[in-house]
Amino acid sequence: MKLYTNSALLSLFEQHIAEMAIPEEPHYLYAPIKYGLEVGGKRIRPILLMLTYNLYAEDIERAIVPAMAVEIFHNFTLLHDDIMDNASVRRGRPSVPAKWGNNIAILSGDAMLILAYKYLQRTSSERLPQIFEQFNKMAAEVCEGQQFDMDFETKDKVSVEEYMRMIELKTAALLAGSAEIGALLAGASDHDCQNLYNFAREIGLAFQLQDDLLDSYGDNQLGKKIGGDILEGKKTILMIEAFSRATAEQREVLCTTHLRKDLSDEEKISTIKGLYDALGVPERVEQQIAKIFEKALAILDNLSVAADRTVELRKYAENLVGRKS
Amino acid sequence: MKLYTNSALLSLFEQHIAEMAIPEEPHYLYAPIKYGLEVGGKRIRPILLMLTYNLYAEDIERAIVPAMAVEIFHNFTLLHDDIMDNASVRRGRPSVPAKWGNNIAILSGDAMLILAYKYLQRTSSERLPQIFEQFNKMAAEVCEGQQFDMDFETKDKVSVEEYMRMIELKTAALLAGSAEIGALLAGASDHDCQNLYNFAREIGLAFQLQDDLLDSYGDNQLGKKIGGDILEGKKTILMIEAFSRATAEQREVLCTTHLRKDLSDEEKISTIKGLYDALGVPERVEQQIAKIFEKALAILDNLSVAADRTVELRKYAENLVGRKS
Repeated sequence: MKLYTNSALLSLFEQHIAEMAIPEEPHYLYAPIKYGLEVGGKRIRPILLMLTYNLYAEDIERAIVPAMAVEIFHNFTLLHDDIMDNASVRRGRPSVPAKWGNNIAILSGDAMLILAYKYLQRTSSERLPQIFEQFNKMAAEVCEGQQFDMDFETKDKVSVEEYMRMIELKTAALLAGSAEIGALLAGASDHDCQNLYNFAREIGLAFQLQDDLLDSYGDNQLGKKIGGDILEGKKTILMIEAFSRATAEQREVLCTTHLRKDLSDEEKISTIKGLYDALGVPERVEQQIAKIFEKALAILDNLSVAADRTVELRKYAENLVGRKS
Repeated sequence: MKLYTNSALLSLFEQHIAEMAIPEEPHYLYAPIKYGLEVGGKRIRPILLMLTYNLYAEDIERAIVPAMAVEIFHNFTLLHDDIMDNASVRRGRPSVPAKWGNNIAILSGDAMLILAYKYLQRTSSERLPQIFEQFNKMAAEVCEGQQFDMDFETKDKVSVEEYMRMIELKTAALLAGSAEIGALLAGASDHDCQNLYNFAREIGLAFQLQDDLLDSYGDNQLGKKIGGDILEGKKTILMIEAFSRATAEQREVLCTTHLRKDLSDEEKISTIKGLYDALGVPERVEQQIAKIFEKALAILDNLSVAADRTVELRKYAENLVGRKS
């Protein structure tokens, strides 16, 4: 049975995205949808869906339609998030709300969510009701996670548990759901579907923690600005871990530095990172990521498929979380 | 086979809405959804779905789940429309964006759309794929209609054909889809499903024209403000009909009156209504409504069911369009 590589799946998926039929009219409803989908990102959710499908089945074309559904869904969330976050740039270009205004962004986002369901509906499977149910569950969870994240902005204290629950909903649910849908579509057993769901949830958690870490400690390789979360005063895992270990005096610094007018951005970032370092925060988060990553990979050992079939899925996890097993 | 009356269906539906299980947390995601659904409106879409179902089947409980889906979908559109229209009042209470802000309105609207799909998914039917397809089609059409309506605001001239196409998408598609879903669920033939779709589309068109007419010529019975469309300079069927029959001088008055600072609201309304009357607009629109209404009722004669089973559906149409056949 043919095993597709990560890069082969990406090429295949990009080809289908490029050939996607999106209506021309009304222009301001559909142009933002095309715009959002054409510049890719990493396509991590559709690739994951195709990888879990390919564990059990090789007619990969069948997985493309639901893979489109999860990718379109993800881009819908970005579109509406950009309104809520007042974000003017997305993937190096003006965001949809910056380019066309909030009203067009709201409505084209809605149409994009409906388009995701159109692809879901076209999925050829006797298990469509289960796939549909899984999709609805994860879609609702993503909204719940986004709401908890917005709630955190005005909350005095966020615990590690609350934070992990939030990213489980906002980030991990969509990966977990994508992995399970691929397995469901391929006819995998309930046992394997559940294990792949759990695997992807853990990978999603590790991915988000890694993302938090890179925002402050990244190597700036991709031109991404370092320290954005610090300047926004965002309650990331770094901030929450730091807060839980800080003295009263250090807590004051953690809470107020981003608001200070007398410091430059550089000074704010170095103040907070100095505290993170002193409190051993990056090491602590690295350890959490490593632990979650190992837990995720161990789940793959429970699958009913031969170990050599999981090779691409393991590579995918390594790439996503930026480490070697 | 039991035939449910319009009012029996409304009571049944309200009972299910009242008993609906909506999660408590996150509060700001789900409270606006409850708020939007609890004050009813006329529930015209779910009632229609149940009426077409009841033409062929009497276990009405089975139709409630998809009826909830179309009602939740409709309320989702109102929630996002209130952001786009900057509307502060809905059904006599503060709108969701006025009460909680735009960000909460965007996200809870998204969650509401997903909730509609959750109900759709729970519909117990072998025909779920067809019902799902129909739902997606109508949902996309409603967004298209809303976009065309927004496009009209900045367009110099809108033809009657363009206007009818816009309301077919924005208003009639959801009624047509609801009617077809009820029939599909009940196992009606393709022929009957198509006829009920067409019937409801015509009724939807007549309903929207009637709504336009009442906005300027209503009897103010329900405390609804008369003349809102005129004061907004909205391109309704009245304005479009008037424009198509007006002299150059009258056109100038039609286009500019709502912008004049030297006139009171009362004076603006009476100026425009004076022109409408002089141009025979209300009579012309009345005729269009009557024609569409007769066309709709005639479609019911093509159904495979006995004429006496359509009695409640005919009453529904009469109530909706405010006339007797």
